[in-house]
Amino acid sequence: MNFSSRLIEEAVTAFATLPGIGKKTALRLVLHLIQQDKEASTSFAEAIVRMRENIRECKKCHNLSDTELCTICTDKRRDEKVVCVVENIRDVMAIEETGQFRGVYHVLGGVISPIEGIGPEALHIDSLAQRVQEEAVKEVIMAISPTIEGETTIFYLSRQLKPLGVRVSTIARGVSFGGELEYADELTLGRSIVARIPYQSDEDESNAK
Amino acid sequence: MNFSSRLIEEAVTAFATLPGIGKKTALRLVLHLIQQDKEASTSFAEAIVRMRENIRECKKCHNLSDTELCTICTDKRRDEKVVCVVENIRDVMAIEETGQFRGVYHVLGGVISPIEGIGPEALHIDSLAQRVQEEAVKEVIMAISPTIEGETTIFYLSRQLKPLGVRVSTIARGVSFGGELEYADELTLGRSIVARIPYQSDEDESNAK
Repeated sequence: MNFSSRLIEEAVTAFATLPGIGKKTALRLVLHLIQQDKEASTSFAEAIVRMRENIRECKKCHNLSDTELCTICTDKRRDEKVVCVVENIRDVMAIEETGQFRGVYHVLGGVISPIEGIGPEALHIDSLAQRVQEEAVKEVIMAISPTIEGETTIFYLSRQLKPLGVRVSTIARGVSFGGELEYADELTLGRSIVARIPYQSDEDESNAK
Repeated sequence: MNFSSRLIEEAVTAFATLPGIGKKTALRLVLHLIQQDKEASTSFAEAIVRMRENIRECKKCHNLSDTELCTICTDKRRDEKVVCVVENIRDVMAIEETGQFRGVYHVLGGVISPIEGIGPEALHIDSLAQRVQEEAVKEVIMAISPTIEGETTIFYLSRQLKPLGVRVSTIARGVSFGGELEYADELTLGRSIVARIPYQSDEDESNAK
Protein backbone atom coordinates (compact mmCIF):
# COMPACT_ATOMS: atom_id res chain seq x y z
CA MET A 1 0.00 0.00 0.00
CA ASN A 2 1.10 3.55 -0.75
CA PHE A 3 0.47 5.65 2.36
CA SER A 4 2.34 8.79 1.16
CA SER A 5 3.01 9.32 4.90
CA ARG A 6 5.77 7.69 6.90
CA LEU A 7 3.87 8.32 10.16
CA ILE A 8 0.80 6.45 8.95
CA GLU A 9 2.91 3.69 7.49
CA GLU A 10 4.68 3.15 10.83
CA ALA A 11 1.42 3.10 12.79
CA VAL A 12 -0.13 0.66 10.29
CA THR A 13 2.94 -1.57 10.51
CA ALA A 14 2.71 -1.45 14.33
CA PHE A 15 -0.92 -2.59 14.31
CA ALA A 16 -0.20 -5.22 11.67
CA THR A 17 2.29 -6.96 14.01
CA LEU A 18 -0.69 -8.00 16.16
CA PRO A 19 -2.18 -11.44 15.47
CA GLY A 20 -5.16 -11.49 13.10
CA ILE A 21 -4.67 -7.87 12.01
CA GLY A 22 -3.68 -7.35 8.39
CA LYS A 23 -2.61 -4.14 6.68
CA LYS A 24 -6.14 -3.21 5.63
CA THR A 25 -7.60 -3.61 9.12
CA ALA A 26 -4.57 -1.80 10.56
CA LEU A 27 -5.21 1.15 8.23
CA ARG A 28 -8.85 1.24 9.30
CA LEU A 29 -7.79 1.41 12.97
CA VAL A 30 -5.22 4.14 12.28
CA LEU A 31 -7.73 6.26 10.34
CA HIS A 32 -10.18 5.79 13.19
CA LEU A 33 -7.62 7.14 15.68
CA ILE A 34 -6.93 10.12 13.40
CA GLN A 35 -10.64 10.99 13.47
CA GLN A 36 -10.60 10.98 17.30
CA ASP A 37 -8.97 13.49 19.62
CA LYS A 38 -5.23 13.23 20.19
CA GLU A 39 -6.06 12.37 23.81
CA ALA A 40 -7.82 9.17 22.69
CA SER A 41 -4.61 7.90 21.07
CA THR A 42 -2.49 8.95 24.04
CA SER A 43 -4.67 7.22 26.61
CA PHE A 44 -4.94 4.14 24.36
CA ALA A 45 -1.14 3.95 24.15
CA GLU A 46 -0.72 4.66 27.86
CA ALA A 47 -3.09 1.86 28.88
CA ILE A 48 -1.03 -0.59 26.86
CA VAL A 49 2.37 0.54 28.10
CA ARG A 50 1.16 0.74 31.71
CA MET A 51 -0.24 -2.78 31.46
CA ARG A 52 2.88 -4.24 29.85
CA GLU A 53 5.28 -2.48 32.24
CA ASN A 54 3.47 -3.48 35.43
CA ILE A 55 1.85 -6.82 34.75
CA ARG A 56 3.62 -9.73 36.44
CA GLU A 57 3.12 -13.34 37.39
CA CYS A 58 1.49 -14.09 40.73
CA LYS A 59 4.30 -15.48 42.89
CA LYS A 60 2.08 -18.31 44.06
CA CYS A 61 -0.14 -19.46 41.18
CA HIS A 62 1.60 -17.88 38.13
CA ASN A 63 -1.63 -16.21 37.06
CA LEU A 64 -1.14 -12.70 35.63
CA SER A 65 -1.35 -10.15 38.39
CA ASP A 66 -1.08 -6.42 39.13
CA THR A 67 0.60 -7.15 42.45
CA GLU A 68 2.92 -9.77 43.97
CA LEU A 69 0.00 -12.10 44.70
CA CYS A 70 -3.06 -12.14 42.45
CA THR A 71 -6.57 -11.17 43.55
CA ILE A 72 -7.62 -14.83 43.59
CA CYS A 73 -4.76 -16.00 45.83
CA THR A 74 -5.36 -13.11 48.26
CA ASP A 75 -9.14 -13.62 48.42
CA LYS A 76 -9.83 -14.95 51.93
CA ARG A 77 -13.19 -16.38 50.87
CA ARG A 78 -11.54 -18.87 48.53
CA ASP A 79 -10.52 -22.36 49.58
CA GLU A 80 -6.75 -22.62 49.17
CA LYS A 81 -6.87 -26.33 49.94
CA VAL A 82 -8.41 -27.01 46.52
CA VAL A 83 -6.09 -26.16 43.62
CA CYS A 84 -7.23 -26.21 40.00
CA VAL A 85 -4.35 -26.79 37.57
CA VAL A 86 -4.71 -25.09 34.16
CA GLU A 87 -2.51 -24.49 31.14
CA ASN A 88 -2.81 -20.72 30.85
CA ILE A 89 -4.57 -17.63 32.17
CA ARG A 90 -7.26 -17.85 29.50
CA ASP A 91 -8.39 -21.06 31.22
CA VAL A 92 -8.46 -19.25 34.57
CA MET A 93 -10.73 -16.62 33.03
CA ALA A 94 -12.97 -19.25 31.45
CA ILE A 95 -13.42 -21.12 34.74
CA GLU A 96 -13.92 -17.90 36.73
CA GLU A 97 -16.58 -16.94 34.21
CA THR A 98 -18.61 -20.04 35.17
CA GLY A 99 -18.74 -18.92 38.81
CA GLN A 100 -18.66 -22.61 39.83
CA PHE A 101 -15.23 -22.82 41.42
CA ARG A 102 -14.28 -21.35 44.79
CA GLY A 103 -10.79 -22.83 45.18
CA VAL A 104 -7.54 -21.40 43.85
CA TYR A 105 -5.49 -21.97 40.67
CA HIS A 106 -2.09 -23.06 39.51
CA VAL A 107 -1.11 -21.96 35.99
CA LEU A 108 1.35 -24.40 34.38
CA GLY A 109 2.26 -22.15 31.46
CA GLY A 110 1.63 -24.89 28.89
CA VAL A 111 1.61 -28.66 28.58
CA ILE A 112 4.38 -31.21 28.14
CA SER A 113 5.10 -31.53 24.42
CA PRO A 114 8.21 -33.46 23.35
CA ILE A 115 7.57 -32.45 19.72
CA GLU A 116 7.75 -28.75 20.59
CA GLY A 117 10.62 -29.39 23.00
CA ILE A 118 8.57 -28.50 26.08
CA GLY A 119 9.64 -30.74 28.95
CA PRO A 120 8.29 -30.77 32.53
CA GLU A 121 11.12 -28.44 33.65
CA ALA A 122 9.76 -25.70 31.36
CA LEU A 123 6.45 -25.68 33.25
CA HIS A 124 5.51 -24.56 36.78
CA ILE A 125 5.43 -28.13 38.11
CA ASP A 126 8.00 -27.89 40.92
CA SER A 127 6.20 -24.95 42.47
CA LEU A 128 2.94 -26.94 42.35
CA ALA A 129 4.48 -29.86 44.26
CA GLN A 130 5.92 -27.36 46.74
CA ARG A 131 2.52 -25.69 47.25
CA VAL A 132 0.85 -29.04 47.79
CA GLN A 133 3.34 -29.93 50.52
CA GLU A 134 3.69 -26.56 52.24
CA GLU A 135 0.02 -25.62 52.24
CA ALA A 136 -1.44 -29.07 52.96
CA VAL A 137 -3.53 -28.98 49.78
CA LYS A 138 -6.34 -31.56 49.88
CA GLU A 139 -7.30 -31.82 46.22
CA VAL A 140 -5.69 -30.97 42.90
CA ILE A 141 -8.14 -30.72 40.01
CA MET A 142 -6.65 -31.15 36.54
CA ALA A 143 -8.48 -28.80 34.19
CA ILE A 144 -6.28 -29.52 31.20
CA SER A 145 -7.27 -29.92 27.55
CA PRO A 146 -7.95 -33.58 26.65
CA THR A 147 -5.28 -33.67 23.93
CA ILE A 148 -2.41 -36.15 23.78
CA GLU A 149 -0.06 -33.56 25.32
CA GLY A 150 -2.66 -32.70 27.95
CA GLU A 151 -3.14 -36.34 28.93
CA THR A 152 0.64 -36.80 29.10
CA THR A 153 0.87 -33.79 31.40
CA ILE A 154 -1.91 -35.07 33.64
CA PHE A 155 -0.23 -38.48 33.85
CA TYR A 156 3.13 -36.90 34.72
CA LEU A 157 1.60 -34.58 37.33
CA SER A 158 -0.40 -37.33 39.00
CA ARG A 159 2.77 -39.41 39.39
CA GLN A 160 4.46 -36.43 41.07
CA LEU A 161 1.52 -35.56 43.30
CA LYS A 162 0.06 -38.89 44.42
CA PRO A 163 3.05 -39.74 46.70
CA LEU A 164 2.34 -36.46 48.53
CA GLY A 165 -1.01 -37.84 49.66
CA VAL A 166 -3.18 -35.33 47.79
CA ARG A 167 -6.39 -36.27 45.99
CA VAL A 168 -5.98 -35.82 42.22
CA SER A 169 -9.09 -35.39 40.07
CA THR A 170 -9.81 -34.30 36.50
CA ILE A 171 -12.73 -32.27 35.25
CA ALA A 172 -15.61 -34.33 33.86
CA ARG A 173 -15.54 -34.98 30.14
CA GLY A 174 -18.52 -35.89 28.07
CA VAL A 175 -21.04 -34.64 25.58
CA SER A 176 -21.56 -30.86 25.83
CA PHE A 177 -24.78 -29.46 27.18
CA GLY A 178 -26.94 -28.69 24.18
CA GLY A 179 -24.63 -30.83 22.02
CA GLU A 180 -26.19 -33.44 19.79
CA LEU A 181 -25.00 -37.00 20.34
CA GLU A 182 -24.54 -37.74 16.67
CA TYR A 183 -22.03 -34.89 16.31
CA ALA A 184 -19.90 -35.85 19.34
CA ASP A 185 -16.64 -37.56 18.42
CA GLU A 186 -16.31 -41.28 19.16
CA LEU A 187 -13.78 -40.90 21.95
CA THR A 188 -15.86 -38.36 23.86
CA LEU A 189 -19.04 -40.35 23.39
CA GLY A 190 -17.32 -43.61 24.37
CA ARG A 191 -15.85 -42.11 27.52
CA SER A 192 -19.09 -40.46 28.47
CA ILE A 193 -20.73 -43.90 28.49
CA VAL A 194 -17.94 -45.54 30.49
CA ALA A 195 -17.86 -42.65 32.96
CA ARG A 196 -21.66 -42.44 33.29
CA ILE A 197 -23.09 -40.94 36.48
CA PRO A 198 -26.27 -41.74 38.46
CA TYR A 199 -29.20 -39.80 37.09
CA GLN A 200 -30.47 -37.06 39.31
CA SER A 201 -33.28 -34.87 38.09
CA ASP A 202 -33.65 -31.25 39.10
CA GLU A 203 -36.56 -32.43 41.22
CA ASP A 204 -34.37 -34.83 43.24
CA GLU A 205 -31.88 -32.05 43.72
CA SER A 206 -34.40 -29.57 45.02
CA ASN A 207 -35.91 -32.24 47.29
CA ALA A 208 -32.46 -32.90 48.69
CA LYS A 209 -32.00 -29.22 49.62
CA MET B 1 -15.29 -11.02 31.59
CA ASN B 2 -13.46 -11.43 34.86
CA PHE B 3 -9.83 -10.36 34.31
CA SER B 4 -8.77 -10.42 37.98
CA SER B 5 -6.31 -7.66 36.90
CA ARG B 6 -7.15 -4.00 36.53
CA LEU B 7 -4.16 -3.49 34.22
CA ILE B 8 -5.37 -6.13 31.77
CA GLU B 9 -8.93 -4.88 32.01
CA GLU B 10 -7.83 -1.34 31.11
CA ALA B 11 -5.74 -2.52 28.16
CA VAL B 12 -8.59 -4.71 26.90
CA THR B 13 -11.01 -1.80 27.22
CA ALA B 14 -8.56 0.42 25.31
CA PHE B 15 -8.36 -2.04 22.39
CA ALA B 16 -12.11 -2.60 22.47
CA THR B 17 -12.72 1.12 21.73
CA LEU B 18 -11.34 0.48 18.22
CA PRO B 19 -13.86 -0.31 15.49
CA GLY B 20 -14.48 -4.01 14.84
CA ILE B 21 -12.56 -5.13 17.94
CA GLY B 22 -14.66 -6.79 20.64
CA LYS B 23 -13.61 -7.79 24.15
CA LYS B 24 -12.51 -11.29 23.13
CA THR B 25 -10.29 -10.08 20.29
CA ALA B 26 -8.96 -7.31 22.55
CA LEU B 27 -7.98 -9.90 25.16
CA ARG B 28 -6.21 -11.96 22.51
CA LEU B 29 -4.19 -8.89 21.46
CA VAL B 30 -3.32 -8.01 25.07
CA LEU B 31 -2.18 -11.56 25.85
CA HIS B 32 -0.09 -11.48 22.68
CA LEU B 33 1.66 -8.30 23.86
CA ILE B 34 2.30 -9.87 27.27
CA GLN B 35 4.06 -12.78 25.56
CA GLN B 36 6.33 -10.33 23.71
CA ASP B 37 9.15 -8.20 25.16
CA LYS B 38 8.20 -5.01 26.94
CA GLU B 39 9.97 -3.14 24.14
CA ALA B 40 7.45 -4.47 21.60
CA SER B 41 4.59 -2.82 23.51
CA THR B 42 6.52 0.39 24.00
CA SER B 43 7.43 0.78 20.34
CA PHE B 44 3.87 -0.17 19.32
CA ALA B 45 2.48 2.57 21.59
CA GLU B 46 5.11 5.08 20.47
CA ALA B 47 4.35 4.57 16.78
CA ILE B 48 0.70 5.36 17.46
CA VAL B 49 1.30 8.42 19.63
CA ARG B 50 3.98 9.77 17.24
CA MET B 51 1.60 9.34 14.30
CA ARG B 52 -1.35 10.94 16.06
CA GLU B 53 0.69 13.87 17.43
CA ASN B 54 2.38 14.75 14.16
CA ILE B 55 -0.04 13.85 11.40
CA ARG B 56 -1.72 16.86 9.84
CA GLU B 57 -3.71 17.87 6.81
CA CYS B 58 -1.82 18.97 3.71
CA LYS B 59 -2.40 22.73 3.48
CA LYS B 60 -3.14 22.45 -0.20
CA CYS B 61 -5.06 19.23 -0.87
CA HIS B 62 -6.23 18.23 2.67
CA ASN B 63 -4.66 14.78 2.28
CA LEU B 64 -3.04 13.47 5.46
CA SER B 65 0.57 14.53 5.62
CA ASP B 66 3.71 14.38 7.77
CA THR B 67 4.65 17.90 6.70
CA GLU B 68 2.93 21.16 5.72
CA LEU B 69 2.50 19.96 2.13
CA CYS B 70 2.02 16.27 1.35
CA THR B 71 4.41 14.16 -0.70
CA ILE B 72 2.04 14.21 -3.67
CA CYS B 73 1.66 18.01 -3.75
CA THR B 74 5.43 18.49 -3.47
CA ASP B 75 6.26 15.90 -6.16
CA LYS B 76 7.58 17.94 -9.11
CA ARG B 77 6.85 15.07 -11.55
CA ARG B 78 3.12 15.35 -10.97
CA ASP B 79 0.85 17.53 -13.07
CA GLU B 80 -0.70 20.12 -10.76
CA LYS B 81 -2.97 21.33 -13.55
CA VAL B 82 -5.06 18.15 -13.24
CA VAL B 83 -6.84 17.84 -9.89
CA CYS B 84 -8.70 14.69 -8.83
CA VAL B 85 -11.43 15.40 -6.28
CA VAL B 86 -12.10 12.61 -3.76
CA GLU B 87 -14.12 12.17 -0.59
CA ASN B 88 -11.39 10.94 1.76
CA ILE B 89 -7.81 9.80 2.01
CA ARG B 90 -8.75 6.15 1.53
CA ASP B 91 -9.77 7.12 -2.00
CA VAL B 92 -6.39 8.80 -2.55
CA MET B 93 -4.68 5.56 -1.50
CA ALA B 94 -6.92 3.46 -3.75
CA ILE B 95 -6.22 5.64 -6.81
CA GLU B 96 -2.48 5.85 -6.03
CA GLU B 97 -2.48 2.06 -5.81
CA THR B 98 -3.60 1.86 -9.47
CA GLY B 99 -0.55 3.82 -10.60
CA GLN B 100 -2.71 5.34 -13.39
CA PHE B 101 -2.96 8.95 -12.22
CA ARG B 102 -0.14 11.48 -12.37
CA GLY B 103 -2.04 14.61 -11.36
CA VAL B 104 -2.73 15.87 -7.84
CA TYR B 105 -5.66 15.48 -5.44
CA HIS B 106 -8.18 17.49 -3.52
CA VAL B 107 -9.76 15.75 -0.52
CA LEU B 108 -13.26 17.07 0.22
CA GLY B 109 -13.59 15.41 3.62
CA GLY B 110 -16.97 13.88 2.76
CA VAL B 111 -19.97 14.48 0.51
CA ILE B 112 -22.95 16.81 0.79
CA SER B 113 -25.62 15.03 2.82
CA PRO B 114 -28.61 17.07 4.02
CA ILE B 115 -29.84 14.07 6.05
CA GLU B 116 -26.62 13.94 8.05
CA GLY B 117 -26.51 17.75 8.22
CA ILE B 118 -23.39 18.00 6.04
CA GLY B 119 -23.67 21.11 3.87
CA PRO B 120 -21.14 22.41 1.31
CA GLU B 121 -19.57 24.69 3.95
CA ALA B 122 -18.49 21.62 5.96
CA LEU B 123 -16.39 20.39 3.03
CA HIS B 124 -13.17 21.70 1.46
CA ILE B 125 -15.00 23.26 -1.47
CA ASP B 126 -13.93 26.90 -1.16
CA SER B 127 -10.27 25.91 -1.14
CA LEU B 128 -10.86 23.85 -4.30
CA ALA B 129 -12.36 26.84 -6.14
CA GLN B 130 -9.46 28.95 -4.90
CA ARG B 131 -6.90 26.42 -6.15
CA VAL B 132 -8.57 26.26 -9.55
CA GLN B 133 -8.34 30.01 -9.93
CA GLU B 134 -4.91 30.64 -8.43
CA GLU B 135 -3.11 27.73 -10.05
CA ALA B 136 -4.82 27.86 -13.45
CA VAL B 137 -6.04 24.25 -13.14
CA LYS B 138 -7.05 22.79 -16.51
CA GLU B 139 -9.14 19.81 -15.45
CA VAL B 140 -10.97 18.72 -12.33
CA ILE B 141 -11.78 14.99 -12.24
CA MET B 142 -14.63 14.00 -9.93
CA ALA B 143 -13.73 10.61 -8.39
CA ILE B 144 -16.71 10.51 -6.07
CA SER B 145 -18.89 7.52 -5.17
CA PRO B 146 -21.96 7.25 -7.43
CA THR B 147 -24.45 7.51 -4.55
CA ILE B 148 -27.24 10.08 -4.32
CA GLU B 149 -25.08 12.22 -2.02
CA GLY B 150 -22.10 11.78 -4.32
CA GLU B 151 -24.09 12.86 -7.37
CA THR B 152 -25.45 15.86 -5.47
CA THR B 153 -21.90 16.85 -4.56
CA ILE B 154 -20.68 16.49 -8.15
CA PHE B 155 -23.61 18.61 -9.36
CA TYR B 156 -22.90 21.29 -6.76
CA LEU B 157 -19.16 21.34 -7.48
CA SER B 158 -19.62 21.50 -11.24
CA ARG B 159 -21.87 24.56 -10.82
CA GLN B 160 -19.16 26.22 -8.75
CA LEU B 161 -16.31 25.30 -11.06
CA LYS B 162 -17.70 25.64 -14.60
CA PRO B 163 -17.86 29.50 -14.44
CA LEU B 164 -14.11 29.42 -13.68
CA GLY B 165 -13.48 27.97 -17.14
CA VAL B 166 -12.05 24.64 -15.98
CA ARG B 167 -12.89 21.30 -17.61
CA VAL B 168 -14.91 19.10 -15.23
CA SER B 169 -14.97 15.32 -15.80
CA THR B 170 -16.07 12.29 -13.81
CA ILE B 171 -14.42 8.89 -13.67
CA ALA B 172 -15.92 6.31 -16.06
CA ARG B 173 -18.61 4.11 -14.63
CA GLY B 174 -19.59 0.76 -15.98
CA VAL B 175 -19.34 -2.96 -15.56
CA SER B 176 -16.24 -3.98 -13.57
CA PHE B 177 -13.39 -5.81 -15.27
CA GLY B 178 -13.95 -9.50 -14.65
CA GLY B 179 -17.52 -8.76 -13.58
CA GLU B 180 -20.30 -10.75 -15.17
CA LEU B 181 -22.96 -8.73 -16.96
CA GLU B 182 -25.86 -10.62 -15.42
CA TYR B 183 -24.74 -9.62 -11.91
CA ALA B 184 -24.30 -5.91 -12.66
CA ASP B 185 -27.13 -3.75 -11.33
CA GLU B 186 -29.54 -2.22 -13.85
CA LEU B 187 -28.39 1.35 -13.38
CA THR B 188 -24.72 0.52 -13.94
CA LEU B 189 -25.48 -1.69 -16.92
CA GLY B 190 -27.85 0.92 -18.41
CA ARG B 191 -25.31 3.70 -18.04
CA SER B 192 -22.50 1.58 -19.42
CA ILE B 193 -24.54 1.13 -22.62
CA VAL B 194 -25.43 4.80 -22.93
CA ALA B 195 -21.83 5.85 -22.23
CA ARG B 196 -20.30 3.22 -24.54
CA ILE B 197 -16.84 3.90 -25.98
CA PRO B 198 -15.22 3.03 -29.32
CA TYR B 199 -13.67 -0.43 -29.23
CA GLN B 200 -9.90 -0.52 -29.28
CA SER B 201 -8.10 -3.85 -29.04
CA ASP B 202 -4.72 -4.23 -27.39
CA GLU B 203 -3.38 -4.77 -30.90
CA ASP B 204 -4.59 -1.36 -32.06
CA GLU B 205 -3.02 0.16 -28.98
CA SER B 206 0.38 -1.38 -29.54
CA ASN B 207 0.26 -0.46 -33.24
CA ALA B 208 -0.45 3.09 -32.22
CA LYS B 209 2.66 3.23 -30.05
